[in-house]
Parts: sequence; structure tokens; C-alpha cells
Amino acid sequence: MQGGEVEEALQDRIARAQAQMRTTDVNLMVLSLGSNLKYLTGFSDEPGERLLLLLVPREGDPVFLVPELYEDQVRRASRIGNLRVWKDEDDPRTLLGQTIASLGVGKGDVAVDDSMWATFLLELQTVLPKATFSGASRILVPLRMEKSASEVRAMEEAGAIADQAFEEILTHKVSGTSELELARVLQDSMLAHGADAVAFETLIASGPNSALPHHRAGRRTIAPGDVVILDYGCRVRGYCSDVSRTVVCQTASDEIRQVHAIVQEAQEEAVRKVKPGVEAEAVDRAARAVISQAGYGERFVHRTGHGIGLDVHEPPYIVKGNHLKLREGMTFSVEPGIYLRRDWGIRIEDVVVVTDTGARPMTRSTHEQRVVQ
Amino acid sequence: MQGGEVEEALQDRIARAQAQMRTTDVNLMVLSLGSNLKYLTGFSDEPGERLLLLLVPREGDPVFLVPELYEDQVRRASRIGNLRVWKDEDDPRTLLGQTIASLGVGKGDVAVDDSMWATFLLELQTVLPKATFSGASRILVPLRMEKSASEVRAMEEAGAIADQAFEEILTHKVSGTSELELARVLQDSMLAHGADAVAFETLIASGPNSALPHHRAGRRTIAPGDVVILDYGCRVRGYCSDVSRTVVCQTASDEIRQVHAIVQEAQEEAVRKVKPGVEAEAVDRAARAVISQAGYGERFVHRTGHGIGLDVHEPPYIVKGNHLKLREGMTFSVEPGIYLRRDWGIRIEDVVVVTDTGARPMTRSTHEQRVVQ
Repeated sequence: MQGGEVEEALQDRIARAQAQMRTTDVNLMVLSLGSNLKYLTGFSDEPGERLLLLLVPREGDPVFLVPELYEDQVRRASRIGNLRVWKDEDDPRTLLGQTIASLGVGKGDVAVDDSMWATFLLELQTVLPKATFSGASRILVPLRMEKSASEVRAMEEAGAIADQAFEEILTHKVSGTSELELARVLQDSMLAHGADAVAFETLIASGPNSALPHHRAGRRTIAPGDVVILDYGCRVRGYCSDVSRTVVCQTASDEIRQVHAIVQEAQEEAVRKVKPGVEAEAVDRAARAVISQAGYGERFVHRTGHGIGLDVHEPPYIVKGNHLKLREGMTFSVEPGIYLRRDWGIRIEDVVVVTDTGARPMTRSTHEQRVVQ
Repeated sequence: MQGGEVEEALQDRIARAQAQMRTTDVNLMVLSLGSNLKYLTGFSDEPGERLLLLLVPREGDPVFLVPELYEDQVRRASRIGNLRVWKDEDDPRTLLGQTIASLGVGKGDVAVDDSMWATFLLELQTVLPKATFSGASRILVPLRMEKSASEVRAMEEAGAIADQAFEEILTHKVSGTSELELARVLQDSMLAHGADAVAFETLIASGPNSALPHHRAGRRTIAPGDVVILDYGCRVRGYCSDVSRTVVCQTASDEIRQVHAIVQEAQEEAVRKVKPGVEAEAVDRAARAVISQAGYGERFVHRTGHGIGLDVHEPPYIVKGNHLKLREGMTFSVEPGIYLRRDWGIRIEDVVVVTDTGARPMTRSTHEQRVVQ
């Protein structure tokens, strides 16, 4: 997208958010540093202890409360003209109180960013003692869940870069390498292929660590016979990729090969289930049925997937109990796994986008079990 | 530290936190993923959408509410025996309500992690409609602010690694390199020298980007005549280093040299001010006086420093209005800067630890302006 198009998209997003606020009878929406702010203004940064809030009334222009050291950066990145700037030596609560008073929203429903720090929500509750607070996700999730063509394009680029990094790993000497070193190889490869950043700390789980679904890369040295889960992704124009493949170092036992085949079947069966109108939980059920039938149901210890976009994890969640009907443009991971306690684990993951007739994966590296040296 | 010592330290920290809760009349403290959880249990991870909370009553054993896929990891990393585990297909609010009911803390003061996501605080407020909520910082900041010898040792190791990375940059060809590439060189160097991770996304701000105090590394190519701010750090055993140096690419104008000298004087003057009993704001005032006298007071657009430890930013803040008296073992950055709008900027930063008589810097790279090629 060019600058002009971006600006138009941002203005359109704010207008749609305000329409949603009027529908749901929300008077004020307050966003802090994070992906919702990025989505509506083009600006964001890591969350921090300085009060930086976007106040969106249901009608009229949003107001940005900004610490002075962010001022120039916010002006360059966002198109919000209405900035109120505070200095490090000021108490920003004064400015917050004045700004909220000037918006005239003393009562009624206030929607706050779901990931806003508690300390800022507690401040808002002090300033607005008569308001009722709820999460802003009910306003913004409906907007963000169905991706536009340019959002899908960014995610597909990020997926293609992740695929290239996997091809490079296959030619890498893995035995004798630590998990952290292997994570660096993947990260460097993604950056060299044009990623703006990694999407999350790369997970490399080798040997017994692969039995822990959320193990991060550590100092363990990979040895022949190890199972190695690679779970990684990158960002392009803010949008994420996320892919998992499980490889074996030099040799695999029969059980490893069998369990890998079960996970592969579960993953592919679940993707075949995806199309508009299908409930999210049906995709989870499809993956789980394959694994349960094979006798490993108890060792598939997480949901089948999560939505993805500006956040690595966002709605829709592919989990039992989620009756949301899938729609074209939704993007989420399909990533069943089997984890044998204190032994090893296997996971295969692709992000897919829902098309008019089914699903299109954004990563295309082979699902067959690959052997690394 | 060995395993036994760590365990003892963790149990001691929980006991001290509970003593502080009794002193401040707090009935229940609730922590989410972040540095406070790490400090009390040894376990943490990136914040996420799954409910994972540590409930600490003022007497008795803490209870951990944990999603199933974290269970094994939490059991290995933490010494908390009392785990309540929920599955992805469960609604964790049921378990949260039951657990809180079993603790018998329906009323009174509840302290929540300052960086807890709003969505979890809103859940807690629903479960505990009669409780009063406030930030847990008033309980944990007094414990965490004065570092133990082993905490200081980890931070000094992280500082020494950052110094080594700076030496490597000085021998690197910088002209023609992008900010992102230079950030990778620093990061790779820190990891190669034994860092567990980078402490934060490395900031490389070149040319006009250096006028933005919080600019991240981007695609801009560094050219002769550029000012380049390098702001980076790493983690050792969870503890952070943080250092800034401003170099010039090949040549520097007279004004750049003069402003660099002013910032250097301000930084060193402020560090000389540090000793037990001095107020935090006096350190800020010392740096600001030098810069104001030189006529750049308006362009020093942030506080002089921030505390650092398990978090990159934590109390004490070195800012006007903070009357906290410094004590031995406190660790914070001293980092004045001058930012000439749309032109360039200069910042020099070291983290120091307060000693019995003054301050000891944790990074020792030269403050003189270095020229890179």
C-alpha cells in the first residue's frame, strides 16, 4: 500500500469502530500500546510504564495522550492530529482527567484494550467512577478478524519467508548445535529474506524439551536421535507468520515415525474441514478425532489453533466450545500436537486463510518428516 | 546460585511479600505472566491470552492457576506445589471463582500485577465485586528495588557482555549498513558472548532518526556524516543490561562534537551525584543543569533514567518529583540526551548500582565520541 491508501484505510477503520461503538452502546474506547492501536492509527510500540492512550469517542475525532518523548514519532506514524502531550516530570493523571472531562463521557460503557496494563485501567476507573468497563475486543475483533486483501498479502509474504528459512535449516548441520544457535539461524535467515522482524521468540524444542508445548530455545545441544520441533515466524508490514515443523536428527524410532504420521493426518484432516459457515470448534474436533482414534487423545494438550494477524494470537480460537462460523478472509493456525511426557513431542502447524470454498495454507513446506544431520 | 539457594531465595521472597501484604493490609495478591511472577516463583513467559495467575494469600501457600499446556513447564521451573490446571476447552473463569472462594478473600484489598492485562483484572472484579483493587507494585517494589549480591552479579555480567559487543561494533564497517543489520551485529555479538537473550529490541537510530528518542532500528542505510545512537542490552539469568553510546560515521560537525561533550558532562555529573540518601530527582537535576546551562534544556525531552533488573524499566525512576532516597543496591540508568528536532540527537547511558559511598557503573565503554567507518 502507498501512503495515501494507508491513510484512507486507517480513517475507514476508525469510522467502522465508531459505528460498532454506537451499535453496542459504548461511549468511549480507550486503547494502549498494542495491536489495536496499530490497527487504528498505524502507530505502536512495546507496552511500557508511561501512560500513552488513544481515546476514541463514539462521535468525533479521537484524542491521543502521548509522553513527550514519543511526540515526533507519533506525529510521523499516525494521522491523529489531536495530540495532548505530557512531560516525564508531569503527573499524567491530571491530563487524563481533563481530557476525559472535555470529551463529556462521565457515565455509560467504556471499552478498554484487552491487553491494557491493569495500572492504566485502575487510573481510568478512578477518573470515571460511574462508568462500566469492558474489553474493547467486542468492538475491534469483528473488524480485525476478516482480513483485507492487502493484509492477506502481507501474511502470505511472511509465510513464504518462513518457508525459505525452513529450506535453509534442512541443509544446516544440526547435531551438536544448541537450540539457541538453531533459533538464531532461523531468525537470521528470515531477516535476510526480507522479514521486518521475528514475530515471536523462536521456539526450538529438542529431545525431552519437545514434550513441553511452550518450551523456548535453550542451551541444550541437539544430538542424533532427537526429535526437534521448530516453531517460528516473522513479520511483514506488521503482519505475522507462524509455522511449526518437527524434524528428527539423523535417525527416528518407529514410534516417532508413527506419531508423526498421526499428527500429519490430524493436521491435514482439520484443514480439509475449513470453509465458510463451518464452526471453529468443528476444525478442532476434526484434528482431535484423528488423534483420539490413534489412542493419543490425552496427549493433545492444547487447542487446535489460534487466529493470527497483527497479533500472533488473536481471535478466532480453534477450540471446543467456539461456535463462531468461519468466514472468508479469516486467518488462523491449525496445529495439532502429541506430547509424550518427559519423552518427546510432535507438532505440525500451518496458518490458513479461509477462501470462498475452503482454506489456503500460507506456508507450504512439506509435512513429511524430514531428517536433518 | 545453585538450585538449593534459588529455592531458598524464592521461599524467602514469598514470605517477605506476605509480610508486606500484612503491613499494608492487603488480603490477596494476584500476579500474571511477567517479572513479578518470575521474581516470586522462578517461572515466567511472555504475557498471553490464556489465564495464568498466581494467587498469593496473606497467609499460607500460594495457588497457581495454569493452562494445561504450561503444566509441566511450571512444575519444573517453579517450586509452587499447589497447581490448579485448566484445559483449553474449559472456561477458566469457573476455576478462578472456585479458587478465590476457597481462599476466603471476598472483601478487602486485592493487589494486582501492574502489567496484568485489563481483561484479567475485569474478570477478577467480576468474581470479587466487593473488593478494592490496587497495583501490586507497592508490595513488590520495596522488595525488588534493592538488589541482592547475586542479582547485581548477573547484571554486571550482562553489562560486561554489552561492552564487548560495543568493541566489536567499532571494528565493523558501518557506512552502507542498514540500521537493522547493525542491530543484528550487536545482538549476535551479545549472544555469542554468553547472553541468554537480548533485553529489548536493539535501538539503532541513525541520521535524522537519532532525533527520535524511541526510534527502533529500521531499513535506513547509514552514511558518512551520520550520528548513530546505539541503545542495547542483554539478559543474564533473567537480569538486564542497558547501555547507549552515540558514534559518528567517519566525520562529525563541530556542533555534533560540542553537543556530545555536553551530554557526556551531564551524564558524568549525574553519576557523581549518586550515593545513598540522595533523592532520585537530585540525580535528574544534576544532568538537567548541565544541559540547560548549555542552552539545550528544551531538547532534553525525557527523564534522566529508570530502574532496571528483571525488567528493563522498573522503579526507581530518576525524574523530577521523585523524592525517594537512594539506597545501596539500587540499580538504574543514567542517560541524558539532547534531541534536535528533524536533525539528530545524542544520548549516553550507563546503568549504575548504588554502593555504600557512591555509584559503580555496570558498563565501562568509553564515553568519548568514537568514530566508526
